[in-house]
Formats: sequence, C-alpha cells, structure tokens
Amino acid sequence: MSGSKIRVGIVGGSGYTGGELLRILLGHPHVEVTQITSETNSGKFVHIIHPNLRKRTELKFISMTQLEECDVLFLALPHGSAMGKIDKFAQLAPRIIDLSADFRLRDPTDYPKWYEHEHPNKEWLSKFVYGIPELHREQIRESNYVTGAGCSATAVALGLMPLFKHGLVDTNIIVAETKIGSSAAGNKPSLSGHHPERSGVSRIYQATGHRHSAEIIQELSFGAKPNIHLTVTSVEAVRGILATCHVFLKENLQEKDIWKVYRQAYGSEPFIRIVKTKEGIYRYPQPKILSGSNYCDIGFEKDENSNALVVISAIDNLVKGAAGNCVQAMNLMFGWDETLSLEFTGLHPA
Amino acid sequence: MSGSKIRVGIVGGSGYTGGELLRILLGHPHVEVTQITSETNSGKFVHIIHPNLRKRTELKFISMTQLEECDVLFLALPHGSAMGKIDKFAQLAPRIIDLSADFRLRDPTDYPKWYEHEHPNKEWLSKFVYGIPELHREQIRESNYVTGAGCSATAVALGLMPLFKHGLVDTNIIVAETKIGSSAAGNKPSLSGHHPERSGVSRIYQATGHRHSAEIIQELSFGAKPNIHLTVTSVEAVRGILATCHVFLKENLQEKDIWKVYRQAYGSEPFIRIVKTKEGIYRYPQPKILSGSNYCDIGFEKDENSNALVVISAIDNLVKGAAGNCVQAMNLMFGWDETLSLEFTGLHPA
Amino acid sequence: MSGSKIRVGIVGGSGYTGGELLRILLGHPHVEVTQITSETNSGKFVHIIHPNLRKRTELKFISMTQLEECDVLFLALPHGSAMGKIDKFAQLAPRIIDLSADFRLRDPTDYPKWYEHEHPNKEWLSKFVYGIPELHREQIRESNYVTGAGCSATAVALGLMPLFKHGLVDTNIIVAETKIGSSAAGNKPSLSGHHPERSGVSRIYQATGHRHSAEIIQELSFGAKPNIHLTVTSVEAVRGILATCHVFLKENLQEKDIWKVYRQAYGSEPFIRIVKTKEGIYRYPQPKILSGSNYCDIGFEKDENSNALVVISAIDNLVKGAAGNCVQAMNLMFGWDETLSLEFTGLHPA
Amino acid sequence: MSGSKIRVGIVGGSGYTGGELLRILLGHPHVEVTQITSETNSGKFVHIIHPNLRKRTELKFISMTQLEECDVLFLALPHGSAMGKIDKFAQLAPRIIDLSADFRLRDPTDYPKWYEHEHPNKEWLSKFVYGIPELHREQIRESNYVTGAGCSATAVALGLMPLFKHGLVDTNIIVAETKIGSSAAGNKPSLSGHHPERSGVSRIYQATGHRHSAEIIQELSFGAKPNIHLTVTSVEAVRGILATCHVFLKENLQEKDIWKVYRQAYGSEPFIRIVKTKEGIYRYPQPKILSGSNYCDIGFEKDENSNALVVISAIDNLVKGAAGNCVQAMNLMFGWDETLSLEFTGLHPA
Repeated sequence: MSGSKIRVGIVGGSGYTGGELLRILLGHPHVEVTQITSETNSGKFVHIIHPNLRKRTELKFISMTQLEECDVLFLALPHGSAMGKIDKFAQLAPRIIDLSADFRLRDPTDYPKWYEHEHPNKEWLSKFVYGIPELHREQIRESNYVTGAGCSATAVALGLMPLFKHGLVDTNIIVAETKIGSSAAGNKPSLSGHHPERSGVSRIYQATGHRHSAEIIQELSFGAKPNIHLTVTSVEAVRGILATCHVFLKENLQEKDIWKVYRQAYGSEPFIRIVKTKEGIYRYPQPKILSGSNYCDIGFEKDENSNALVVISAIDNLVKGAAGNCVQAMNLMFGWDETLSLEFTGLHPA
Repeated sequence: MSGSKIRVGIVGGSGYTGGELLRILLGHPHVEVTQITSETNSGKFVHIIHPNLRKRTELKFISMTQLEECDVLFLALPHGSAMGKIDKFAQLAPRIIDLSADFRLRDPTDYPKWYEHEHPNKEWLSKFVYGIPELHREQIRESNYVTGAGCSATAVALGLMPLFKHGLVDTNIIVAETKIGSSAAGNKPSLSGHHPERSGVSRIYQATGHRHSAEIIQELSFGAKPNIHLTVTSVEAVRGILATCHVFLKENLQEKDIWKVYRQAYGSEPFIRIVKTKEGIYRYPQPKILSGSNYCDIGFEKDENSNALVVISAIDNLVKGAAGNCVQAMNLMFGWDETLSLEFTGLHPA
Repeated sequence: MSGSKIRVGIVGGSGYTGGELLRILLGHPHVEVTQITSETNSGKFVHIIHPNLRKRTELKFISMTQLEECDVLFLALPHGSAMGKIDKFAQLAPRIIDLSADFRLRDPTDYPKWYEHEHPNKEWLSKFVYGIPELHREQIRESNYVTGAGCSATAVALGLMPLFKHGLVDTNIIVAETKIGSSAAGNKPSLSGHHPERSGVSRIYQATGHRHSAEIIQELSFGAKPNIHLTVTSVEAVRGILATCHVFLKENLQEKDIWKVYRQAYGSEPFIRIVKTKEGIYRYPQPKILSGSNYCDIGFEKDENSNALVVISAIDNLVKGAAGNCVQAMNLMFGWDETLSLEFTGLHPA
Repeated sequence: MSGSKIRVGIVGGSGYTGGELLRILLGHPHVEVTQITSETNSGKFVHIIHPNLRKRTELKFISMTQLEECDVLFLALPHGSAMGKIDKFAQLAPRIIDLSADFRLRDPTDYPKWYEHEHPNKEWLSKFVYGIPELHREQIRESNYVTGAGCSATAVALGLMPLFKHGLVDTNIIVAETKIGSSAAGNKPSLSGHHPERSGVSRIYQATGHRHSAEIIQELSFGAKPNIHLTVTSVEAVRGILATCHVFLKENLQEKDIWKVYRQAYGSEPFIRIVKTKEGIYRYPQPKILSGSNYCDIGFEKDENSNALVVISAIDNLVKGAAGNCVQAMNLMFGWDETLSLEFTGLHPA
C-alpha cells in the first residue's frame, strides 16, 4: 500500500507537536506514517485526540514498546525523555529527528547550566545537527540525526542571524521579547493554562534565564558569545510567536543597507518572507496569519534618532517552530523538494 | 473591630463564586468577613488565589474544621458537598445562604431524577427559599435559609417569568439556548478547559437533559409544568450567559403589549433592565458589558410572520447568576437596601 | 504559461470570500487565476489585502472594466451587485459561480419578501443551480451557472436534510440557532465590528426574520414548507458557524435509527463527517477545528424524555459556507475529483 | 438636588475615556456630573453610547456650544483639540483636567519634535501639572490645571521612577516594551481595529519613535535625559497595558535591595501594589485582573547572570492610564480622600 514511500514513526504522538507532525506527514507524497505512539492513549484512534484528522486516517496509537523498524523516527517526547533512550531509538531507524531540547546544545556543559542536569549521552550531541535549514542546510542534507529547535529560539535566531553573521551589531546588549500562544506550553492541563486564568492574558512567562537563550547564544556566536536578555510573555493566542529584538548597530547603517543584508541572506529561502511595507495593516510580521504555515516572516525598523534597530519576526510555534521545520529538514535529508507537504499558506482572516 | 457589623463566614472560598462573594462582601458597609475556608489553601493569604484582592484584605484561608460561630454562613461548596452537612452548618450560624444546587429543588423526587441520587436531608428542602429576589422577594425577607440559583436557570427563569405568570405562552414547547463562559465550569483544570482546547470555541456543553432544567421547570410552573428543551453551549468568554428563549404566544400579542407585561413585572426592579432599542449596537442584552455587575438585562423580539417570540436575557454567571444574587438576598434577609455593595455597573468597553 | 489549465477570474476579490477563493484556487492543479478585481484596490498587489498570499502570487487587482474573457468567473460581490449585471458577466465566461444571494432563491416572489426588492433578472433564477454538492450534485455537474449558499443556510440545511427528506420530523416547529464569527459580516469597518465592541460578545445578530431562512425553507421543502425559526448570534471567533437545530420527531426513533439515516445520506460524502463520540472533548461538531477546511461536521442527540432531537452542525463560514463549497462545485462542473485543492484538514489546536 | 456637590462637566464624552470618567464620577459622593458633550451624539441618552450606564443616569449629550459654567471641566477630546481652545474652557471653570497630550510636555520644543507641530498656547504649558499623583502629588494639590498622562507612559514611568530617582540604572540604554489592548486606539472604526483583523493579534503598533517616549523621558530625567527605546505592541485584549522594561543596574544590587527601593517609594501608595510572589499563577503584574481598577501593579526580576533588571508593570489603560488617574488627581485638588470612587478592585477571573 505504501509503494515506494518511506515508513515514518512518530514517538510521542498525542501532544500538539506530535499532532502537527502527523497532520503534515499525512499529506506528504513520499511518506507513509506507519506507527505513532502514546502511552496514555494506546489503542485509541488518533482522531480522538487530534479531531481535525477524523476521516483522514484510521491510525491508532500504540505503546512505545510496540514500535517496529522504520525509515525515520520522529521523537516528539517531553524534554528529557529521549536523551536516555537514544541508543534504543537508533536501533529502530537509521534516521532520527528529535523535536525536544535533548540534543540541541553542542556544548555538554550547557545542559547543567541551563537544564540543571548532566546529559547522559554526551557523545550523541555531536552527531546531531541543529535542524533549522536556513542556518544549517548543508549539514542537514548529510546528517542522519537532526534536532529541532526551540520555538522562541527559532524566531529570534532567524530574525537576527544575518546581522550577527556580518558582525553589524553590538553583541553585548541584545534584548529579545517573545510573545507566545498557549500551545507552546503543551497539552497538559494546569491552573496556569486553565481558560478562565489564561484567557486574555499578557503574563510574564519567564522574565530572565529562559532556556531557549542557550540555543540563541549558540546559533548567534559568530566569534563572540552574545549577551541575550530574553523575556517570554504569554499572550492571548493558541498558536504563534512574535519576537521583537532590540539590537544596536555598530555603524550608522540606513534601512536600505539592512534590506540588502536580509535580502542576500534570505532572498531565495522558500519559507522566509521579508515583511516591511508602507501599505495596509500587515506592515510588519504578525503570527496571526501564519497559523498552520511554515513561514517565518521577518521585518525591521531603525530608530531615526539612535543606532537602535528593532527586528521583528513571527512564526507558528508548532509549525516553523517545531513540526513543520522538522519536516522541512526531513525533505532535505532525503533530497526532496524542501517544501513538500508544507504548502499551506495560512489563513486570512484568522 | 467589626463595630455593629454582622460577622460573615464563607465556606468553600477558593472557587470562583467564593472569590466573588468575598470581593462583594469586602465592600459591604454592614458586613465583616471573619472567616473563609479552603481545605487545599488553608493558611494562605486569600490574595494568592484571588489576586484582585491584594491590598484589600489580609484574610487567610482556614480549614472547615476551624470554623467559628457567626451571623451568616455562605456555602460555596461543590454541588453535593453541603447537603449531608447542613445540620452542622446550621449549628454555626442562624442564617445560611447556599450557592450550590443542594437545596434548590422543592420536590425531593427531583434529585434522583436530575442528580442521580437521593437527597440525604429531604426535610431541609422545605426550609430553603429559592433565592432569586425578583421571584421570591417576600419569602426571602422572612427566611433564614436561602439557596442560590443555577446560572443558566436564573437567566432563563427571569427572562420568561412574566410571560408564564400571565399564561401568555404555549407551555408545551419552549426551546432555551444558553451560551456560557468558561468560569461557569469552575476552577479545576481539565482538558476541556485547557486554553488551547477551550479558546475560541462554540462547543455543545450539554445538548439535552441539563440539570438546570429542573429549576426552570419548578420556577415557571404556574399551573402546568412546562416542557423546556434546554441546550447549553460553551462560547469564548470567561464570564457571562446569554439566554435565547424561543416561545410561542397563545394569542397574537403586539410587541407593545409584551412591553407592558415586562414593565409591570420588572419596572421597579433595581437589577433588571429591559433592553430593546433601535439605536446603537447594544440593542439587545449582551453579557459582555455585565461582567462584575448584578444586572439581568432582558429583551425580546416578536417574529412578524408567526406567533414566535424570542426572549433574550443576559447576566454575569458569577454575580447575578451566583454571588451577587446571594448578597442581594442577604440584604433582603437583614432588611437593608437591596442594592448594598452591588453598585458596580459593569465596564464599557470590556 | 497556463498549459492546459483553465483560466479563472474572480470578481470582487478584496473581500474575505474573494480572498479565500484566491487562496484555494492558487493551489488548484487545473486552474490558473488570471484576473481578480477590486475597485478600491485596483493596481495593488493582492498580498497587500490578503497578506497570507505574500510570496504565493504576484497578481494585482484590476478594475471590473478591465476584465477579459476566461473559462469561469467567480462573482464574490456584495449581495445585490451581480443581479443586474449578470448578462454582462455571462458574455465574459461560459460558466459563472456566484457567491452572493442574488441567484439563490428559485421563487422570484421570495426576493421582495426577504430582500425587500424585485429581482431585476427573474429569468436567470431558473438557470442557476443551488450549489451545495451534497444537495444537488447531479444538477451542478450539468450546469453552467451555479450559486453558492448562505453560510448559516448551509450549516442548517446540511444538518437537517436527511431528516426532512425522509419526513421524520414535524415541519411545523423548527428552531435553529447559529453562532457565527465576525468574518461573516465582511471586511468593512463599522462600530459593531470594532474590536473593543465586538471582542468577547454573545450578541444577537438577528433574532427573527434572517434572510437565510428563505434558503433553508427552499432546500428543506420536501412536500410541506417548513416553519423555521432562525436566530443568529455573533460570538467571539473570526471564522466558524455552529448551528444547533431543535426538531421534533414524528415517531419515537432511537439514536441508532437516526445514525442510519445520516450514514445513508452522508456516508460516502468526502466533506461531511458524522461526529458523535463518547470519548475525548470533541464529542460533537465544533467549528474551531474547521478553520480553513471544507468539512461540514454533523452530530445529534435525542432527548431521553421527549421526542426532541438536537442536531448540531459546524462549518467554516468562508470555506464550506462560501469559497470552498464553490470550488467543490467547480470541480464537479469540470468533471474533476471533487476534493481537488480542498485537502486542508483544519488545525488542532487552533 | 446636588446639595454641596461640585458640578462637573465632561467635554468629549462619547469616547472610551469619557465614558470611564462618567462611570467613575457617577459613583462619587461629592460630585454631580451636570453636563457631558458629544458633537455627533448631541441629544442622545449617554447610555446609548455607554450601555453599562443604562438605569444609572438619564443624562443626555449636549453640544460643546451649550456648555455652562461649572466647578471642574474634564477634557477628554482627541489629541490636538484642546490646545487651541484652552482659554475658552478656562472661562467656563476654575479647574481643568485634560486627558489628552495637549499639555503634558513642559518643554515647548517637544511638540514640534514629537507631535510635528508648534504648540499654539505655549504659555499654558507651565500652568499644567503632569497629573500622576505618585509622581507629583503636592503640585497637584495646589494646582488648578492638571494634565493626564499617556497610558504607556504611565506604566513605564511608574515602573521605573524609583530606580531613576535614586540613580541606580544606566540611563543610556532602556528598552521598554508595552503590550496594549484595543481600547487604547479609541472608538473610531478602522480596518486595523476591525475584529477579523484585530482579534488575536500580536502586532507591532509602533516599533520606534512612539510619542509617549517624550513623557517618559521628561518624567525620568533626574539629571540626565535617559535614552528610552519604546516599542508598543497590540495584543488581544480590550483593556490593559503590560510594560516590560529592561534596564541595567550600575551596581550589583540584590533583589532584596531593590525591594527596599520600591517599598520606600510606593509602600504607602493606595494604588500601587508591588507584585512579586513565589506562589500561585499571579506572580508578576498582569493587566487582566486590573480592568476597571485604578491599580498600578509593579514587579521586577533580576537576571542572575548579569546586571540586567526586568521591571514589569500593569495598568488598565482607561483607568490608571486615563480616567481613574484623573479622578484621583481631582480628589487631591479638592482635598478629599484620594481613593474616593476608585474603590473597585477588578475582577477575578476576568
């Protein structure tokens, strides 16, 4: 039935990123999802948990112990769950794409520093590629082990990379504010996510010391390690991240110069759009219109009276910030068109 | 310290209705809240749970076992918790106001029918007055035991009472639809109330057989028992109920005749407003502007081509649908101005 | 450039339904959108108005006067705009699909009754097919002129059709309540749609006499004309309709009997899902997970104590309630797979 | 009828701040609102525009030309409208409180710089006191002319004042991000405020150069003029501002030292609460629970690994950010208890 399709397994398929993986992969011309696990929902149809997939698939969840060999294994487990079991997963599939933070950081000392524990499989860290195609396309093509990226990290790193790569900004002071939707906190009920408490909030999620800082520092270290001050704020939305980054230019560049830098970096990227217009009400990136899409929209505005530059980027945290980005990476790993099954544009209005 | 104020205790003070009781009673000129219980939060400042009350009170939660005598006891426990302990509570205070469903139904056989269990203290049912002042004002004045009303029941019963009292509508077919906010389901986290799942919904909460039907039937039985078809739908809001009731007039009344019926019934009520205007965008009742207020807004529209009449009513489920209504009842029980501490109008915009 | 693709024009492309048509048609393998009109935005890139389409198309709006011949013309004009110009449009294209109400009603006397004016081209009414494929598939296949359906009418008519077709319910009393999102009112700013006033509402949009009643009566008249009491309520959502229909069974059918009726009617329909489960939190249809998809989800619940049946249906008003349904009709008209370019499942969470 | 109450007039009473002024003043024991103007609604009952005030007042709007003398005149006109007419208003009342930006800036050269025009009545600028009581209480007591403050400016200036007053932070780099609700943009319908476009957004309102910067610089200039980089982002909410300010400490202070600074500055302020707790889900300020209240909640968190300090403040933009703050100032001007008619705590949940 699968013809020449590759067989894909999803481990940890009842969460929001697992559900998005499944949604995207079900539409992929070269993929057959052959197995998907959930310990608590084992035996149930996936559409009981992911109701949008009703009538699209008759898959049922299985337990992790029932996993069989396949061509690619996507790991969508809670952070900390995959790092100790990676050898077992590697026996099941020649290629692994992990969506958690377990293999994102290259420097093993970053785990005790940011995650308060040693990494149990340090030797695996160097096998994984940080899987944002716009940052590491060639490495991803040649790798069998790819890690997804943190959603806030993706928005900030993609927004700032061209400036840092060219050494245009002061690396000593970067203030990054991300506004995130509720799906970023996962699907486990809690008081902080209970609708009467969560609805309509602008709530500090983390003022200082957010773990995604480690990824951002890692990815923006072109020479010096930058000082990132990242604050994450929960806002009323289910999906979406808006990152606003305040950086300070070393030289007095004009906006047209900055345009050139971004166009050069991203002009041929299929999933990055530079959004900076004078007309209409969508003059800068807005996550609202990105739900379900794999785009990362990026814009910027220079302060007329100083060397401050505000860089704005927006993504769907579950797509470009998680599942979509990982499917894009898979497409690269198999030499397919990078955009396969990621064609959905997002809705307007939404 | 309390001077001539009455001492009030709140049992079950960590829930949403308990918090609203406390907020309203803290502003009451003749009341001192002397004790408030929560088993899980015993020992904590109430403002940890009800953050709007920070700097307004230094009260801490106590355990139910620490309750002392007082002048009035408000019971804001989950349904089913008070019915078995009512004798004990009655020893602590000469007056009791219960916000749960435990003493709302006059007919003991209604409990097995609608709540699937026998009532353990049937003899207490006749001691309680159904505490909606607009329906039973004189009885409330003379009673020591008052029960609050269901929030959907309040909206529907107040909306329809004048028509039923005067026998103007067919009692065989009444279709009532209430749209409710998330606070109506309480503060206990669950998947159905988890923000990513609850946000933006129009979700059938109960299509048929909702328990508030029993109260509505009880309160609208002026002779015949009416057939109520009540459907409750969850919509995106934290507070608020909009009830839309479809009834069928026996005679071909004009809208001006119906106006008279409502004006006669409610014209002098401090907390009922008849809302039916041609101007502006608030032509009919809308719960949005009632958050925090004790108003019940009521309007209606007659179908030009039939004998159908649509009656629309709106309340804040936690105020007129719960805590505010019970404070109004308390004011009556003590012979005070019915509106004391219930002056907040609601906000616009909100 | 278009190869063997058909050339499609969209008249009135700056509105929300026009934007959705464009989004869907841009992904269609057999279609090239060659022209799209907007009088106020003529000359602008379409992505200024429909920002989700940035990087997907370089189309610009043209004026209606610049329209050239093509294979199909979609009309997405405000109601009343197309009825007088239909002859001109018919000269431009052999096939026309109109999304407005201008050609929906078969009986010319319905226009003065429901729309307060005579229809200027009554002879055209019989040329158009009411374009809901699940109701008129064969006629659509053979027609060159198809009209879309009202969004509330679509949800109600699809929800009730099987019961009416088999004469199972009392046609004298049908109460239908639809809850609609803000996009149903179009993209023209007004005080009623101004965010501070519209946000979080449960607001009566129309209590009685809604124009979509005419379509519902027309489509559910299998013999007798039914008495529909339709109330439309605006709720907090951008997209989506939840229809709750209260009907009364003539005979005491069991739920399993009703299951059979729906399964027989819709079991092989690609865009209808019968949603009625005991597990999970998506037990009945919910519009929230349908945004962007062409599904109509339908469920029902019988009242245990009476012959009342509550039928629940949900759609995205801009897709199955407008643009998506019309693309489905176009696919039928050209003999293509009915689901082409309508594969998007909707998102969860959303 | 007014007894010894003062007579108050509201000029520009149909907007959101005018409505809030009216709501608050209607509950004030020493005030009678005798007149309220609206050119477009002249002759209409105020409750047509401010529906929450139905049954609270029978006031009708009048035209500005009908204004009579009174004791205080509140001006709630659009920015730019009052500056040219101030002499006329001063003839009508001995005391004026202006809510616009027309008299906020002390330095006349700030108007061309930030508002692109000369101020036509520069001599009036020195007569007005910047009316935030926590910043200028004594001056307000002795002044007849008080100006309100910008809502974003209020949140930022109150949040940062204690640090700046004591010279604790680097004045060269301050990054301030405010997240604002839709009511901050007023009640005039526009595409950017149209619900389908505005709902659920995280949208850059102004990335650089926001006019409130001028007020913040003015109020935080204790010696040096600070460099403020203010970005304003629209989020999904009707009311509320969350300000997140990133500053850098000159010396390595501990959090307990900063606590002392804030407690000393604000410990006895009736409307400022320092919010920084370990328990519960309201650990830092959140505007959600402030709707309708005059509180400004302030908290902070120091980065463990640097000298960065994040200061968080929250207000209701229409109350502490506009109408409430001005009533607080009026109370001071008349020697009354500062909290009169400002007792509403805000709601939870909300």
